[in-house]
Amino acid sequence: MDGETSSTVMRIRMVVEYDGSDFIGYQLQSHGTRTVQGELEAAVGLLNRVPTRVYGSGRTDKGVHATGQVVHCDVHWRYTPIAALKALNAVLPPDIAVRSVEVVDATFDSQRNATSRSYQYVVDNGALRRPLLRHHAWHVPKKLDVTAMSTAANVFIGVQDFRSFGTVLDGKSTLRRLDRLDVTRSEDSVVIDVTANAFLRQMVRALVGTLVEVGLGRIDLADVRKILAVKDKGACPPVAPPQGLYLMHVDYSGVRIDVRNKEMTI
Amino acid sequence: MDGETSSTVMRIRMVVEYDGSDFIGYQLQSHGTRTVQGELEAAVGLLNRVPTRVYGSGRTDKGVHATGQVVHCDVHWRYTPIAALKALNAVLPPDIAVRSVEVVDATFDSQRNATSRSYQYVVDNGALRRPLLRHHAWHVPKKLDVTAMSTAANVFIGVQDFRSFGTVLDGKSTLRRLDRLDVTRSEDSVVIDVTANAFLRQMVRALVGTLVEVGLGRIDLADVRKILAVKDKGACPPVAPPQGLYLMHVDYSGVRIDVRNKEMTI
Repeated sequence: MDGETSSTVMRIRMVVEYDGSDFIGYQLQSHGTRTVQGELEAAVGLLNRVPTRVYGSGRTDKGVHATGQVVHCDVHWRYTPIAALKALNAVLPPDIAVRSVEVVDATFDSQRNATSRSYQYVVDNGALRRPLLRHHAWHVPKKLDVTAMSTAANVFIGVQDFRSFGTVLDGKSTLRRLDRLDVTRSEDSVVIDVTANAFLRQMVRALVGTLVEVGLGRIDLADVRKILAVKDKGACPPVAPPQGLYLMHVDYSGVRIDVRNKEMTI
Repeated sequence: MDGETSSTVMRIRMVVEYDGSDFIGYQLQSHGTRTVQGELEAAVGLLNRVPTRVYGSGRTDKGVHATGQVVHCDVHWRYTPIAALKALNAVLPPDIAVRSVEVVDATFDSQRNATSRSYQYVVDNGALRRPLLRHHAWHVPKKLDVTAMSTAANVFIGVQDFRSFGTVLDGKSTLRRLDRLDVTRSEDSVVIDVTANAFLRQMVRALVGTLVEVGLGRIDLADVRKILAVKDKGACPPVAPPQGLYLMHVDYSGVRIDVRNKEMTI
């Protein structure tokens, strides 16, 4: 009304950063809980003047951060992308911000079109706990053997059945294509970078938990091979805690190889 | 009693790190408020089995962090320094930790014996606000002229009357000896490192606030000289917010030059 003509619907893609500390996770949950999706939908809905669903590339758990979560939604506002970016950041709470807004094809799907996801996990490997890092790294006080971790990491590269390292809905494939799993030390930080076509639920934290067991000398390369081969979640060491984990990047440029819901055809 | 003999009192010096976000400041205040000193005294008192006063090198304001606050206290426990360190870190809350414990001469005073203090201030100078940095840097979205800031910083070096940049109790000297005030850029971060024999209340934040005004082109070198010369707190630009400020180091090795409470004699 207000003198407006009806606007065309357009699909936008946004890159989103958030500090996961005060969220119960990315995905919308029961009423009264604070989620990233809920905050994004509130902000987008305010600008769009109608309730608007926001679709993420994937969920992140309670306490997990993101610098490069990708979401899409359909809007009928007349803001330019840069104006929308500024307006959204003005209304979003301090622990979420939009880093980019672009108009995309109406068929774009942030989850289904993703060709790979990249996460980073930060271990604070100093002897003493660091208050300033407590929400943003996992403190492992005993010195990690990064060489042993790197060797073990190679076991996971390629297309593998990761049933021991995560969960999916009944009957879905647990095959994933792992492209990268690098372990590097920089002074007291041990950083694990991992890229795959997609991940099972809690798979990154399970891989990190396993590599840290290797780095502590509690299990060895042969144990890692056995855990992978046994295809049993019960064989996996405890998952790493969420606060060291960051969703860094979602890629849409490669060829999508969907190893999730059907047999591999690569 | 418990079969114990009475123990000798010893003075210990501790280096303390804290995330200032959830404290109303370092210094003990009215009942029911959360302070760094209060948490330290609770932890030390628990180990020492009697209420124990903890003396800091200086107060930090609400929201200000420290990686190198120094405190002293008198204890009669039998822990070795390393055992005390571990026990204190086990009972301290997650946002405070002790980094070192050492036994010092009974005359050591963390405040009076300090010969210099070093602070670091972190400005996030990226165009978009960063949720992951919100408690640990000041977001200034417009690009700062670091060269102009560095030039202006030189105005403050040496012994100066900093009355325009802070407060002290009536009648106390506002002379301070500034040894270092460096401004450096690393990608989107602008970092300001400052060392002085001591600082007036809010002086670091006042200096940073002034340098940022220079970096934004709102005031120039001549204005900075005037603000310093006028010796009037009202002439100072707004102080920088607390969350970018870190007390990095307190030094006890140099010659103490007390320019605070009497005439300079250097």
